Amino acid sequence: MSRTIKPSILPGFMELLPSDQILFNQMMDTIRDVYEKHGFNPIDTPVIEKEEILLAKAGGETEKQLYRFEKGDNKLALRFDLTVPLARYVAQYYPELSFPFRRYQISKVFRGEKAQRGRFREFYQCDIDIIGNEELSVINDAEILSVIYNIFKTLKLSDFTIRINNRKILYGLMAELQVKDSAAVLRSMDKIEKIGQENVIKELKKEDISDANISKIVDFVQQKGSPEEIISYLRGMGIDNEVFQKGIEELAEVVEYIKYFQVPQENYTIDLTIVRGLDYYTGTIYETMLNDYQSIGSVCSGGRYENLAGYYTDKKLPGVGVSIGLTRLFYQLRESNIIKNESSTLTKVLVIPMDRSTTGYSIGVTKGLREAGIVAETYLEDVKFKKKLNYANKLSIPYVIIIGTDEMTSGSLSLKNMLTGQQDQMTIDAIIKEVQKP
Amino acid sequence: MSRTIKPSILPGFMELLPSDQILFNQMMDTIRDVYEKHGFNPIDTPVIEKEEILLAKAGGETEKQLYRFEKGDNKLALRFDLTVPLARYVAQYYPELSFPFRRYQISKVFRGEKAQRGRFREFYQCDIDIIGNEELSVINDAEILSVIYNIFKTLKLSDFTIRINNRKILYGLMAELQVKDSAAVLRSMDKIEKIGQENVIKELKKEDISDANISKIVDFVQQKGSPEEIISYLRGMGIDNEVFQKGIEELAEVVEYIKYFQVPQENYTIDLTIVRGLDYYTGTIYETMLNDYQSIGSVCSGGRYENLAGYYTDKKLPGVGVSIGLTRLFYQLRESNIIKNESSTLTKVLVIPMDRSTTGYSIGVTKGLREAGIVAETYLEDVKFKKKLNYANKLSIPYVIIIGTDEMTSGSLSLKNMLTGQQDQMTIDAIIKEVQKP
Repeated sequence: MSRTIKPSILPGFMELLPSDQILFNQMMDTIRDVYEKHGFNPIDTPVIEKEEILLAKAGGETEKQLYRFEKGDNKLALRFDLTVPLARYVAQYYPELSFPFRRYQISKVFRGEKAQRGRFREFYQCDIDIIGNEELSVINDAEILSVIYNIFKTLKLSDFTIRINNRKILYGLMAELQVKDSAAVLRSMDKIEKIGQENVIKELKKEDISDANISKIVDFVQQKGSPEEIISYLRGMGIDNEVFQKGIEELAEVVEYIKYFQVPQENYTIDLTIVRGLDYYTGTIYETMLNDYQSIGSVCSGGRYENLAGYYTDKKLPGVGVSIGLTRLFYQLRESNIIKNESSTLTKVLVIPMDRSTTGYSIGVTKGLREAGIVAETYLEDVKFKKKLNYANKLSIPYVIIIGTDEMTSGSLSLKNMLTGQQDQMTIDAIIKEVQKP
Repeated sequence: MSRTIKPSILPGFMELLPSDQILFNQMMDTIRDVYEKHGFNPIDTPVIEKEEILLAKAGGETEKQLYRFEKGDNKLALRFDLTVPLARYVAQYYPELSFPFRRYQISKVFRGEKAQRGRFREFYQCDIDIIGNEELSVINDAEILSVIYNIFKTLKLSDFTIRINNRKILYGLMAELQVKDSAAVLRSMDKIEKIGQENVIKELKKEDISDANISKIVDFVQQKGSPEEIISYLRGMGIDNEVFQKGIEELAEVVEYIKYFQVPQENYTIDLTIVRGLDYYTGTIYETMLNDYQSIGSVCSGGRYENLAGYYTDKKLPGVGVSIGLTRLFYQLRESNIIKNESSTLTKVLVIPMDRSTTGYSIGVTKGLREAGIVAETYLEDVKFKKKLNYANKLSIPYVIIIGTDEMTSGSLSLKNMLTGQQDQMTIDAIIKEVQKP
């Protein structure tokens, strides 16, 4: 070799050692399993899409972050989310799909963001959406919330709150108060937890809103209480704006059905401050907070949109969905020591032949363990015994079976528990039972 | 929306409907499961690498096919295989890894190939490799073969043959026969099944090889028989070239250990014609053929290499591994009707409320099914009954539970088998038992 290139990856990309990768995959498998149990089906759109497909929806910051390139006559780009590919997919295969169309996709997306700690340029999104044909019952909004609940419960991140709100209520309120720049006002409202009441009032004053209306807004965003209490407050506000009233009805129906989905009341709340930045939400919106780690921000967000695929089809396709940014979530949970890796390998048993004379026999023992469903491997290198045991130690393999000529002859094997150091002579059947103990 | 963009993807990219995606994922899960059972651990390298990392190894056709682009000050490229990222990974994290390092990676790779039927520009590779530190026993070559065996056995593609050969034998033979352009001769040998003996002889004549040596080569590539017979033939060739002899010893050791791994003799063979195009193989090489579908070509290939990461480190890292090009394999199996999709959904039971008055109760029934491990969903749209049943029919959902007021009151539910049309009143427990029947 003439020269050596320093082995490294680009900044802003996550790459894990096997110990963390195992942990990451466990989380991803859990999310996938919950999605599938709920009857969401997989799709896997290409990483590379036609540039025009992605640009139809991009714009602003997203367009700047897009990885774009050419190859042959084609203008290409890497997907920046999974929603635009979903819209394109549903429009493209519309005649072949059944509606409501329930799909999940767990895939990497790409954004050429400014490098920052905890922000990634390549990251996994875990998305579910339910897409209706022309119509989609608001009960689906309650089901999506129940899926979020089941995900975080199964991930054993149990102290979490799913916050919901409804965009129609926000838009209706803005219309009622005749706010000119409603986007700016909503942004201010969204920040009340971060910057406090005083600063929100300051920002609202700049927007040329009367003191009476500012009071109304501040009162509105500060509502706390049970879902029923908040709905009752909203109904009592005396705003007969049609959109506002529609929003209350949707929210009330979602709350009613959440009970049937048996989501405990401690795990969800109506939070009138949440707004969600994305323009296309038109009804229910979701954010999910880990209560002991609020600084992480929302770990699962989404909402209801009236028309998914207007750029690609004339069909009206309303939908509701959420997304988990798994790469960032994993990074934050690891940084905060909320999750910890336990082993550098999936292997539960290492079978060590004392020397070459027992290697063949050891391979058979390993095969028997595997057939019983145990992840096992044979140490195949012809090195000193200490080095073999070292391999098990370094990877934190919980059990080692040591096989010399005696063991091979008698069939009574030596099982060493690497955690306790205990070593026993056992039959292969007894070993399988011992290792399979939960 | 001002304009509608035709929803489409680029040519040369695979995208599946859910029915096929479910099938594809089942194959991918099987491969992953077999890899993991054998103690291979997951890694997940970035899709985007530094251009210089990939260019170190690329060159020729690969370099032309590379998707390259710039963002900010960085020169980027999409990985074209999983071996180069593995080499970079092992060199980069060398101090933190345990050797032999057993890893698998199942990920998409990207090649801007000329568009052709059955060739893809974005496709999954499923790779396993075992990397040694300085040394790696040739027994690992036998283990890799046993992993291939277990994969295709578990995929129920049972009539397959893993062909093995050893590059040292080929190089040794070329040296012994003083062949000038050994690459050209090996390419000709590799083609004997396709183009026949006469044409191979023609090609060899062009290479300025004596008639006596041509006879030797033709005799060599036409050897058939048991592994023992072929090894005995090789030993009897009277070639005392050192590399050739080393190759025979390696091959004999692999064959000896394959027995301990209990791979049936019908599933592997020594095939002296296989060569594998990639330069870096230095010992055992593998190809896997589906016997009834030889035209598909090798569905799992790989080999032994003396030094994985020479471009990125001075450490000597020998390894052995194989790769399954899953996207292409899936495409070919589907085209040939070797595999068939059975359903457009993972859902086993659709719970249909007759109307809104039983929707809440139905949601509870669905939850009960899910808790018993059954993929279930509630039909939530308020439409005509026929349309609800149609949804189940179109997706081939095997069971439907219909819930009216009577069912809600009595707790005796109506289970309809959508395949047979049979409908029975049953308790939820009886339904769970019925649906879980294998």
